[in-house]
Amino acid sequence: MASLKSLYDPSTDLGNGLHTNFDVDYVIDYRFATTPKPQAEAQFVKLIQALNDVGLSTEVRNGDNCAVLVFVKVASDRHLKAEVYRSRVQDWLYGVRSAAPEKEMQKNLNDEPVTEAERLRIAYLLITKPKNEGGAGITPKGGEWKGVESVFALHDHTFNRRWIKELTAKYFLNAKDLIEIKDRFGEKIAFYFAFLQSYFLFLTFPAGFGLCAWLLLGQFSPLYAIVNALWGIVFIEYWKKQETDLAVQWGVRHVSKIQHKRPEFKHERVVTDPVTGEEIKVFSPLKRLARQLLQVPFAIAAATVLGGLIAGCFAIEIFISEVYDGPFKAYLVFLPTVILTTVMPTLSALLTGFARRLTDLENYETQDAHEAAMIQKIFVLNFITSYLPIFLTAFVYVPFAQVIVPHLDIFQLAVKPFAENEKQMTAPKVGFQINPDRLKKQIIYFTVTAQIVNFALEVIVPYVKRVAFRKVKEVKADMAAKRGGGTDSPTADDDPEESAFLVRVRNEAELDTYDVTTDFREMIVQFGYLSLFSVIWPLTGVSFFVNNWIELRGDALKIALETQRPVPWRADSIGPWLESLGFLSWLGSLTSAALVYLFSGDGLGPDGTPWNIKGWALLLAMFFSEHIYLGVRLGVKIALSKIDSPGLQKERAERFLIRKQYIQESMGDDAAELAAARGIAAGEKISNSTLQGESTQSTLKEQRTPEQRFWQCQPSQAQTIAIGRALIAKVSLSSTVEEYS
Amino acid sequence: MASLKSLYDPSTDLGNGLHTNFDVDYVIDYRFATTPKPQAEAQFVKLIQALNDVGLSTEVRNGDNCAVLVFVKVASDRHLKAEVYRSRVQDWLYGVRSAAPEKEMQKNLNDEPVTEAERLRIAYLLITKPKNEGGAGITPKGGEWKGVESVFALHDHTFNRRWIKELTAKYFLNAKDLIEIKDRFGEKIAFYFAFLQSYFLFLTFPAGFGLCAWLLLGQFSPLYAIVNALWGIVFIEYWKKQETDLAVQWGVRHVSKIQHKRPEFKHERVVTDPVTGEEIKVFSPLKRLARQLLQVPFAIAAATVLGGLIAGCFAIEIFISEVYDGPFKAYLVFLPTVILTTVMPTLSALLTGFARRLTDLENYETQDAHEAAMIQKIFVLNFITSYLPIFLTAFVYVPFAQVIVPHLDIFQLAVKPFAENEKQMTAPKVGFQINPDRLKKQIIYFTVTAQIVNFALEVIVPYVKRVAFRKVKEVKADMAAKRGGGTDSPTADDDPEESAFLVRVRNEAELDTYDVTTDFREMIVQFGYLSLFSVIWPLTGVSFFVNNWIELRGDALKIALETQRPVPWRADSIGPWLESLGFLSWLGSLTSAALVYLFSGDGLGPDGTPWNIKGWALLLAMFFSEHIYLGVRLGVKIALSKIDSPGLQKERAERFLIRKQYIQESMGDDAAELAAARGIAAGEKISNSTLQGESTQSTLKEQRTPEQRFWQCQPSQAQTIAIGRALIAKVSLSSTVEEYS
Repeated sequence: MASLKSLYDPSTDLGNGLHTNFDVDYVIDYRFATTPKPQAEAQFVKLIQALNDVGLSTEVRNGDNCAVLVFVKVASDRHLKAEVYRSRVQDWLYGVRSAAPEKEMQKNLNDEPVTEAERLRIAYLLITKPKNEGGAGITPKGGEWKGVESVFALHDHTFNRRWIKELTAKYFLNAKDLIEIKDRFGEKIAFYFAFLQSYFLFLTFPAGFGLCAWLLLGQFSPLYAIVNALWGIVFIEYWKKQETDLAVQWGVRHVSKIQHKRPEFKHERVVTDPVTGEEIKVFSPLKRLARQLLQVPFAIAAATVLGGLIAGCFAIEIFISEVYDGPFKAYLVFLPTVILTTVMPTLSALLTGFARRLTDLENYETQDAHEAAMIQKIFVLNFITSYLPIFLTAFVYVPFAQVIVPHLDIFQLAVKPFAENEKQMTAPKVGFQINPDRLKKQIIYFTVTAQIVNFALEVIVPYVKRVAFRKVKEVKADMAAKRGGGTDSPTADDDPEESAFLVRVRNEAELDTYDVTTDFREMIVQFGYLSLFSVIWPLTGVSFFVNNWIELRGDALKIALETQRPVPWRADSIGPWLESLGFLSWLGSLTSAALVYLFSGDGLGPDGTPWNIKGWALLLAMFFSEHIYLGVRLGVKIALSKIDSPGLQKERAERFLIRKQYIQESMGDDAAELAAARGIAAGEKISNSTLQGESTQSTLKEQRTPEQRFWQCQPSQAQTIAIGRALIAKVSLSSTVEEYS
Repeated sequence: MASLKSLYDPSTDLGNGLHTNFDVDYVIDYRFATTPKPQAEAQFVKLIQALNDVGLSTEVRNGDNCAVLVFVKVASDRHLKAEVYRSRVQDWLYGVRSAAPEKEMQKNLNDEPVTEAERLRIAYLLITKPKNEGGAGITPKGGEWKGVESVFALHDHTFNRRWIKELTAKYFLNAKDLIEIKDRFGEKIAFYFAFLQSYFLFLTFPAGFGLCAWLLLGQFSPLYAIVNALWGIVFIEYWKKQETDLAVQWGVRHVSKIQHKRPEFKHERVVTDPVTGEEIKVFSPLKRLARQLLQVPFAIAAATVLGGLIAGCFAIEIFISEVYDGPFKAYLVFLPTVILTTVMPTLSALLTGFARRLTDLENYETQDAHEAAMIQKIFVLNFITSYLPIFLTAFVYVPFAQVIVPHLDIFQLAVKPFAENEKQMTAPKVGFQINPDRLKKQIIYFTVTAQIVNFALEVIVPYVKRVAFRKVKEVKADMAAKRGGGTDSPTADDDPEESAFLVRVRNEAELDTYDVTTDFREMIVQFGYLSLFSVIWPLTGVSFFVNNWIELRGDALKIALETQRPVPWRADSIGPWLESLGFLSWLGSLTSAALVYLFSGDGLGPDGTPWNIKGWALLLAMFFSEHIYLGVRLGVKIALSKIDSPGLQKERAERFLIRKQYIQESMGDDAAELAAARGIAAGEKISNSTLQGESTQSTLKEQRTPEQRFWQCQPSQAQTIAIGRALIAKVSLSSTVEEYS
């Protein structure tokens, strides 16, 4: 445990600072470095008042770097309970819960205790919801509250430590582990872990089968491609089902219907809803559509810029490695890599920023719509940067190298300073040999090297950064202390009892926020490699399997140590990523078929040049592959939909209970009435006599309507039966007569 | 009006028989021709008792042909109301209604009167539901109730006459017309009319554009193909939206969740549901899946048999018309048509029967699942019979005729008796000319001739049949009367007041039942021609436009006159047909692209042979066409989902009302509490003092927990603010000092 503890907080021994959060729900990091003192004070007063107004207690302490830390908790237990109950009632009204909450609040809360995630979510909403919805309306970094750097909950380090220890000790998460994550970090993050866990479990198959395929079938095996596509279908369809199931089990199904309004939303006008009479803020959907259409030029521009860069570097690389034959070749080969690694991140950041601005411009009303729109754009960017290099190698370089390479002379410019003569830079007109290993090497780079680099960037680098940052801070504090300015140090006024706690909080205030979409993106991109290109190198699955075991623990570590405690949002699915998964799997059916056709037999004909590729055969292979894929997907979907699951059972049970209860409640007296209405077997038919309140016998025929007369022909059951029997007997008789006549 | 009236009932003047139904809800046609008298009587007694047991009044009258007619109505108005209310509560529990029905039954029924369709549906369910669900358990033609030939409602001829008159007088049905249909014949049939109406409206576009294309663009125009595919997408996506909208407006959304159990369902074992404790009858889903897999050999067999027949006849036709050159050619050309028209219906009927048995074997638990499975099989059969001939011409005959025709010599057998010498029957080895008009002629046959023939078979033939049948019956009755067997005639005992009514009922008992799936099938197949092949002959749309104006009226006429009044079932969509529509439209994107590529320029190269078709180009055209199609479809779907509609508005309004009501009801006292909990702005913070019930000031510091001490540092808002200000001031000051130091 010593090692874990030291990993946990290496620089300072925080002692009991780790063990208590002093009942704090949220810490508001209020910064005023750039604000003049009077405004800063006025805004601070407003902040405290706004918080107190919605029933939140506040305590203020000193922070680092021109900041004060406002500690917030829900003032009274009763207030918290009322808010929780209100939220549960809202859930029921939106169809998230099938049963209406107990009318008596206390009973409801006893039946279903408040989880930490629920409490924190509700407290966060109290702080951030607009005033007209009952919140304090504090929006970090936005508008009026620019001074509020962040609103974050405090880590429960006792739990975190136990959690990390447990995770590293076991291979698979079980349902209980996921519920624990959900109760601590909210359903949205729990869905990420559930997805990662399912994906990891499913990866055992492509890892095992991939290993066998690598040993027995070699590259570009059609069998591997088919099995891999089938696996993709089963995984996605299984996950869809699993997702719904988890949502039901966690009681968050349809929770995406409860939309959180974006405070940044700008309305054009206020309209009174014709049906509800509510005032709604409207932004013209046509205007939004027009702005959304900007995505098309954006995607084209991004594809052109990124694609141009990638294709350019790719061409330079080929030119240098395959054509150029002069000095410094060994170093010049790295030129394109250098260009890519320097220009690409800048360009990516630029485009991401542009995507963000575009999404802001689209001015969505709700948080979810905004996020989905952003994810869509990010997916396009990722798709280009992640897969385009391989697409270029597989579908441009190999089939068309013979045509293209001679034209690469334009890149002579890049090597001109080094070349000794023209000949070194001129492509051979004939006999150019394609490098058949290039594709495999590229795949290995993306599926092994890049994954390791990524993990390092994600977990190790921030850790080092954090340690270094604290060291600097300590040194600075020491220097300040030596200079005699003891009162300047934020820790100077700390109560000794709180001091360790406050140091911890100040550290947590410096951390980044955790964004689950980044982690999702990584997994989706990874799935893409498996689905689109793993036929090139069947060990892809093995690499990912190993990687994801670490990834899951790394992500947990990241949440626990490297980032502020995330706000425990709810979710009922993994959101728009599911569509990306489906799209990549579909596309995989096309690329796999094309790769198998193009490269079976190393992609080279007997003479070392690409074998005689027939356009129609390639297209036919892709056509069949795609349509068989779609057919099988439909089949798997239908088959899986027939299987019962715990979530579905729970749903059924809940519905049944409600029905039973309602029928018992409201049908009690009805049932009695029914009993009276029936059971007319023996006696007189209740028909008209009781119905019209007149005595059948005493009423004259003339006074009754034709309908009454019709229904009174056989006033009792006995009469109906007698007449019916007579009719049957007569007809039977006459037909017998006819038969004999 | 005279003509309509005569059309209405040409053979007999029924006088007031048309104007009243004597309050009859249903007529049960009980036949006993093949049953020995004692059994027949016993079963009849049981029938009457079962009906009376569930609160239904009965009257019995003589029927035609060894039958008695049992007239049924719900015995008391109160009983009917209770049943209606129970059904509405069930709707609410299944989520069909968003608002719970008024707890007081009478108020609910006053607010929302019972429509005729609702009454008839509930009465029908009372008659047919199993006994354990509160019905009489009478299943026509099935099991114990083999003697019950049919259970049918009586037409409301006054309404029918007015309805037909209105329909023929207007071009388009409006929402009111559809509601009228729904209130009379149920939502399922109303959905058919709504669909037909939308389709008809949408057809104006392909009719108009098709005419222009025919005049200006000619056959196989790429522009026409694109516009046509786009139209298909918009129509289907519009209809999906419209369907949901209508379901909401008619209050039947999600009604498909309320499943009617099939009485024919055979369970393997009875299981107690682990969650609800209900006993459920189970049939192993794996066993069903195994049986469902029989569909694959069935489809293959059907395709082989029907396809073989069609291809054979097609080959013979080509052989005779293009190769054979002997005597009787003019007559022999009709040989394949004769074979087709004689063999095809038999074969179709055989296969349909087989499909029915297969569906029965699959042993579905609910009516809907059974129907959907049957529709699926019928769709496969229809697909083959309707489209295969054109597929053969377009994709086999034209491209490969040069290869195939010389091998048609095998059909010499068919014409051998007529040929004078071998040469007449031998295909020319070279210079065979493809008949370019064949494809167009075939399309015209299927889209014009076949539609007219179909209409005739559907409306006119049954009409003639019915008239003839009645004539025969009259003649028979006359003969019987002459023979002196007056008592044999079923009309002999009729009360003069009821006589005309009873004649009408006896006639209606002889009618067929109306099956809305037949009409749906017809429309879907028609849509298929438009989507798949109309690029061959752009006037297809015009033909269908004209046809469907008649079709809608013809169908109405059929329901009103040619069939028994249908049971007014509910539905929330057009069901599995929607998928067929989507499939055909998708397939259209492939066939249209292929047709355009193959036949642009009349499908013939300059030398009269098919021009140089390139496999890869054909496949590329199809590939792009399909994927652009899928992309556009996604776009249209998203765009349409953004548009508000009356149904969505209604749903929103209902939900809002419920929420408002609930919040008013249950949140009243809570709101007061909330007001107390907040408003702590000015005074002391409520925090710990009130919460823990101890006086802050008097408690010694040592007795409190660290948490309490932490939160009591700044016991009032004023203190928090003061300390915060001090902190801000100090930091601002020190940073100012630093700046100057």
